[in-house]
Amino acid sequence: MIIDCHGHYTTAPKSLETFRQRQIDGLKDARLAPAKDSLIIGDDEIRDSIEGAQLRIQRERGTDLTIFSPRAGGMGHHIGNAVTSALWSGICNELIHRVCTLFPKNFVGVCQLPQSPGVPPANCIAELERCVNEYGFIGCNLNPDPSGGYWTDPPLTDRYWYPLYEKLVELDVPAMVHVSASCNPAFHFTGAHYINGDTTAFMQFISADLFKDFPTLRFVIPHGGGAVPYHWGRYRGLAQDMGKPPLKDFLLNNVYFDTCVYHQAGIDLLTKVIPADNILFASEIVGAVRGIDPETGHYYDDTKRYIDKVDWLSAADREKIFSGNVRKVYPRFAARAAQ
Amino acid sequence: MIIDCHGHYTTAPKSLETFRQRQIDGLKDARLAPAKDSLIIGDDEIRDSIEGAQLRIQRERGTDLTIFSPRAGGMGHHIGNAVTSALWSGICNELIHRVCTLFPKNFVGVCQLPQSPGVPPANCIAELERCVNEYGFIGCNLNPDPSGGYWTDPPLTDRYWYPLYEKLVELDVPAMVHVSASCNPAFHFTGAHYINGDTTAFMQFISADLFKDFPTLRFVIPHGGGAVPYHWGRYRGLAQDMGKPPLKDFLLNNVYFDTCVYHQAGIDLLTKVIPADNILFASEIVGAVRGIDPETGHYYDDTKRYIDKVDWLSAADREKIFSGNVRKVYPRFAARAAQ
Repeated sequence: MIIDCHGHYTTAPKSLETFRQRQIDGLKDARLAPAKDSLIIGDDEIRDSIEGAQLRIQRERGTDLTIFSPRAGGMGHHIGNAVTSALWSGICNELIHRVCTLFPKNFVGVCQLPQSPGVPPANCIAELERCVNEYGFIGCNLNPDPSGGYWTDPPLTDRYWYPLYEKLVELDVPAMVHVSASCNPAFHFTGAHYINGDTTAFMQFISADLFKDFPTLRFVIPHGGGAVPYHWGRYRGLAQDMGKPPLKDFLLNNVYFDTCVYHQAGIDLLTKVIPADNILFASEIVGAVRGIDPETGHYYDDTKRYIDKVDWLSAADREKIFSGNVRKVYPRFAARAAQ
Repeated sequence: MIIDCHGHYTTAPKSLETFRQRQIDGLKDARLAPAKDSLIIGDDEIRDSIEGAQLRIQRERGTDLTIFSPRAGGMGHHIGNAVTSALWSGICNELIHRVCTLFPKNFVGVCQLPQSPGVPPANCIAELERCVNEYGFIGCNLNPDPSGGYWTDPPLTDRYWYPLYEKLVELDVPAMVHVSASCNPAFHFTGAHYINGDTTAFMQFISADLFKDFPTLRFVIPHGGGAVPYHWGRYRGLAQDMGKPPLKDFLLNNVYFDTCVYHQAGIDLLTKVIPADNILFASEIVGAVRGIDPETGHYYDDTKRYIDKVDWLSAADREKIFSGNVRKVYPRFAARAAQ
């Protein structure tokens, strides 16, 4: 079985975007704010939006199931306030639930959280519980920078985040560390902000002792871990200079990397320096890069091809990367599959 | 000849740091502000600070010369205002000049610029000219984020920076894109802010057409280019989706990467995906990571060892990486060497 742990609903019906625009307009003029039930999306619209995109790509590339969440760039936690984010997250998560219900063999849900800059993460607990307990979601996306590129909230290791972590541990669900759109003109969103978010989070984990307080808390760092595997020597050395244990013992029981790295040399490096126990297959479809690589003739984001070509992975390693690690990191997936 | 293009004066005499602290104290209480000439550092102090550190390491590792600049983390452009930065940059650059004068065979200078958040970069021109024309410096370090981690200035491709670029082109000197310390608790400075700065700058270059306006402007992106080579497929794909030419044609006449990547797998990837014409040897001594890698028994930042082990580099490629590219990117070095 091949599980893609990182897919977003980037192909949602247009009316979702229209609703969001009306919600944003309503922040300036309350008379323009849409009622929640004014957004009507039929099952057929959902089927259409998925069948020709994610479902077709799953078939073409030979993957079986995608861990599916709302469009990351669309979370927009910097827009409006906690009320804005609560309504918007509720709507986006419900749509993911509908996709997973319509295609139960192909998708399993992960929620976005109703974060807002400066608002304590404890505020996200109710939506997390709703998504896990009522929708059967198996994880969440956690934005380390709800400000959208100004990084005004405390590091992920600050006690500020602890109430949410307590709930993640209690529910036994992991968080993928995933920023949203950047409203800072310095940062291109998928080319800089996403990758920086990944790198930043990992270095925050090195700089503190979060997993002493939460030994079973688990994070997936997407986009191949940002810059981390490429600079694995730097991170091992920095941890050593700080008097921390070797990274393998210090962080790799709690931190995992996905395979959203869009060329062979990158996947080669990832699978050389990061243990197979900590790598989860992912391609981020339909996502950041949509073209065909003229050097290979295949889609940049067809990451399964790169992994298939790595000849030093044993069959057991491959099984871990393609599905075994998902069962470990997302135990609710395993429980669901066992039913 | 082996030239290290990226070394900082991290071992400067303690009195420099004391002066800086007094300068910072003077921002709160002007009576505490030190006079410039209160900082007295003797030649012997400078010799001592270099001989047991950078010079010893050059000898031990077999490098000949270091392109040397003030401590990057110490630039602190977010501290005080333009007057603060002018005084501090002048002092730091003068010290580099004294190192280069005392050890002319071992060091050649690169200046820090007196940047401040929100202050037009044109304000740095006088100091740049002074360092190049009077001190014989061959380049500068340019901070893409003088705010120290809040990224409040425009992207490097904005016309805001153009007057400085005009001067760089006129003087025919390159800029290394190098952030300073982070005052944002989200970003560890050498582990997140440095690497993010590199990644961010490269994506800014992809998103605009800066080198149409400045075809001979040259940037060195340090720390192996941040996350860029590891995600080379992502960057090629993003450029392609944006309708830009292939990165090789679009940016690689103007953008270069150093080799400050502290493990073999990282250097392997760098030399696989980035043409040898665009790689400059560097180790950032005495710098970010100071320990010995228990996996190899050698210093993490002894990057020459990694390059020596890459067996697909031809003799011509090695010559480019170790010195030829420096002559190309820093023409004032070549002119100086010819004298």
